[in-house]
Amino acid sequence: MDGSLSIDKALPRPLRVILRGVGQVFFCCNAVTGLVFLIALYIGGITAGLAATVGVISSTVAAYLLGFSEDDIDAGLYGFNGTLVGPCLFLFLENTPQLWLFVVLASVVSTVVLAALMRILQPYNIPASTSPFVLTCWMFMIAVYSFDMFSRGPVLPAPAIPAEITAASAVPMEFSAMTQETAVAWLTAITKGIGEVMFADSVIVGILFLVGIAITSLRGALMALGGAIVGVVIPVILGADKTLIQMGLYAFNPVLTMMAVGWVFLKPTTGSAILALLAGIVTIICQAGLANFLAPLGLPTLTFPFVLVMWMFLFAASKSKYWAHTP
Amino acid sequence: MDGSLSIDKALPRPLRVILRGVGQVFFCCNAVTGLVFLIALYIGGITAGLAATVGVISSTVAAYLLGFSEDDIDAGLYGFNGTLVGPCLFLFLENTPQLWLFVVLASVVSTVVLAALMRILQPYNIPASTSPFVLTCWMFMIAVYSFDMFSRGPVLPAPAIPAEITAASAVPMEFSAMTQETAVAWLTAITKGIGEVMFADSVIVGILFLVGIAITSLRGALMALGGAIVGVVIPVILGADKTLIQMGLYAFNPVLTMMAVGWVFLKPTTGSAILALLAGIVTIICQAGLANFLAPLGLPTLTFPFVLVMWMFLFAASKSKYWAHTP
Amino acid sequence: MDGSLSIDKALPRPLRVILRGVGQVFFCCNAVTGLVFLIALYIGGITAGLAATVGVISSTVAAYLLGFSEDDIDAGLYGFNGTLVGPCLFLFLENTPQLWLFVVLASVVSTVVLAALMRILQPYNIPASTSPFVLTCWMFMIAVYSFDMFSRGPVLPAPAIPAEITAASAVPMEFSAMTQETAVAWLTAITKGIGEVMFADSVIVGILFLVGIAITSLRGALMALGGAIVGVVIPVILGADKTLIQMGLYAFNPVLTMMAVGWVFLKPTTGSAILALLAGIVTIICQAGLANFLAPLGLPTLTFPFVLVMWMFLFAASKSKYWAHTP
Repeated sequence: MDGSLSIDKALPRPLRVILRGVGQVFFCCNAVTGLVFLIALYIGGITAGLAATVGVISSTVAAYLLGFSEDDIDAGLYGFNGTLVGPCLFLFLENTPQLWLFVVLASVVSTVVLAALMRILQPYNIPASTSPFVLTCWMFMIAVYSFDMFSRGPVLPAPAIPAEITAASAVPMEFSAMTQETAVAWLTAITKGIGEVMFADSVIVGILFLVGIAITSLRGALMALGGAIVGVVIPVILGADKTLIQMGLYAFNPVLTMMAVGWVFLKPTTGSAILALLAGIVTIICQAGLANFLAPLGLPTLTFPFVLVMWMFLFAASKSKYWAHTP
Repeated sequence: MDGSLSIDKALPRPLRVILRGVGQVFFCCNAVTGLVFLIALYIGGITAGLAATVGVISSTVAAYLLGFSEDDIDAGLYGFNGTLVGPCLFLFLENTPQLWLFVVLASVVSTVVLAALMRILQPYNIPASTSPFVLTCWMFMIAVYSFDMFSRGPVLPAPAIPAEITAASAVPMEFSAMTQETAVAWLTAITKGIGEVMFADSVIVGILFLVGIAITSLRGALMALGGAIVGVVIPVILGADKTLIQMGLYAFNPVLTMMAVGWVFLKPTTGSAILALLAGIVTIICQAGLANFLAPLGLPTLTFPFVLVMWMFLFAASKSKYWAHTP
Repeated sequence: MDGSLSIDKALPRPLRVILRGVGQVFFCCNAVTGLVFLIALYIGGITAGLAATVGVISSTVAAYLLGFSEDDIDAGLYGFNGTLVGPCLFLFLENTPQLWLFVVLASVVSTVVLAALMRILQPYNIPASTSPFVLTCWMFMIAVYSFDMFSRGPVLPAPAIPAEITAASAVPMEFSAMTQETAVAWLTAITKGIGEVMFADSVIVGILFLVGIAITSLRGALMALGGAIVGVVIPVILGADKTLIQMGLYAFNPVLTMMAVGWVFLKPTTGSAILALLAGIVTIICQAGLANFLAPLGLPTLTFPFVLVMWMFLFAASKSKYWAHTP
């Protein structure tokens, strides 16, 4: 890890800032980790990689031009929202040339939203995290209904009144019969869960993300893995949609929640690890709730379940005599 | 009243804290009042009483374990949200053994949400009141659509696009002909309105709640009664759904609003009584508005109309030279 | 301009305060400007003019009676939300005698909401602007579904799940063929865009509003005009609904955003003019997004897109070393 940090410091500043921006998607202020993430994204798909690159550069350059804090920019804090905006819009909207313009504009807007939220949360010393990415992408994706120039892609759910799910009869993930086949299904769901943080429905991308995190922090990687496991086990117990579980779509939010609560923002103790587990479980319920809340609008939850639960636990931490924020 | 407070102080601490938690549903930091409320709940129904008991204990114990303020815990402030979470989930979701686990988890979550909201509202010196109960129950109830393990009960409204009501032709509550029959209908609606604060569709429970409040404060009981009357008279004038009015479902929110504005949080003067009346009337409109806002999601308003209007008046009070917050 | 301010100061206080309240709809603390706006409103329609008059008087008198800051009242800050509440309710709800009572109550409520929001935003030194008008009118309009006493008018959109627009085949506004006819269409859309800030679908009212603003500030009038142009050009490029564009319904929000960002709240420099342009463009996307968000509820966006984007830019301005708030 120290080795990767010396490489980080040796890089030319613009490159370091951009790569740290990518790394910050998983809270890693480390250009080497960012590089591993970026390579993984390109492996997942050229368009996703390019869109992330355009996003991280647009949002970071916008922060310079608008005169926001140099320290924050150097830490990559004005990069990770743009990194997520790019692949998000290319996944959910129809892939057209003009979509690149939309990505640049949305990345710039995410930078303004981040500065605004930093100001709002400043008296509380609470991070905005990925909320600017979520709010900006929601706004741009729901606006598209009204414009001929852009279209919703097939991945976006059609808007509909929420309805109770009907239990899939053929359930491939059972606790009872743990054959080799089911073991593979579990491992697939867990690794994809890490990959889906950046919209990658891919085992290899998920594994590379985990490696990248481990380069920065072993505890961070353990929390990510724990979150992914929680994000498969708990929805299986609750009886959630199997297709969603197997794609890792219940797991990417607890991955981030457990990293935030158990590693980044609270003192890394056994206590905060237990809290992280509780927060991860609550994230599953929040994820299902928010998905149904957004159903009439035809929008995905993105990482907002993580943001809400993280905020809840970090605000509450200020009122506890046991929990402590990291300095 | 002084008598009840000496009993309150004489009780063993764990019992006192739990009963005060029940009492705080109506802002009463008084174990005797809490006991009256709890007995009333059991009279209303064994399940509701048990669920409230499990809820108040879970949320209070969680507050101890998580290290939140001992003073707040002793005052019962970490108990009343759990008290409401229990009967709420048992009323609106299908009654199954695993629902008890859900109630315990939701009560613990309501404690974390309360600590978070206390921190957010701290610079303004404004109470979170029942908002943690509402937010937590909304999240758990809307999540249930996605899980096979739990089901929505028949009481929850089906999700639907809001539509204008059609006036019920046979109207049993008229101003013109005040016969004995209509007098009974009015009294039923008013007392049930107080009972519905804790989901009790029962005249006797409503009366017991009023008695419990009067043990702590006569002004408090008068405000509760005033709120219940406002919650029947105003919707009748506006032409709201008669079934809802008769079940007291327009009244439980103004009951809480008038107690909060006219007794608990502002200096108890004639001025604040008039303000409480205005706040009570506004609560009716807010109640109808929020119900329609939530219609596409199939969620009930719970006590959020009260929370919103109370916040509105308490924040505004800080800008007035006439209103004064109680110390 | 100095002449209009001497007239403003020479007026009897009650008249000055009321007229300034009308003027503040476009950020003009100037009774002469307010008078021009009010005359324009009456020209647009007697009912709209009367409703605005009742609204501004109700909200201002309520502020006096509730004991809010005399300085704020004198500046007309407790008047402009009421000015907007009146014509809004008369445009969107069925015109009945009892609607006047609803307007008075809603105007009073908008005053309480304003005081509450002022308190919430006080630590950040950010204005509440027209958000009390929007929140109050949304609450009153969505409540009406539940009451027989009031009805939704034909102008309010029916609640519906959002759907992608189908491009109007016959497009009267083309960049290519700039004939006299299309020039008239453009000018109509731009001037109506200014008129629609106060719900006036009228070219002459829009022009009078622009004149009124110019009496107070030339930069203000330029920003308003710029916002109206942005509110026609950008939706045409994006391929938005032509009928909405031609009625100025995409333009009234950027009109306010550009005035707020480029004239009122940030230091009036070239930099803030460029920022205002960016904010104006973002307002279009926010407008479309919010309209679709509100579709299932059958509510119009009113001026909330402006409020959201203005807040975003003003909060962000606090984090920039280039932008500066006006004192």
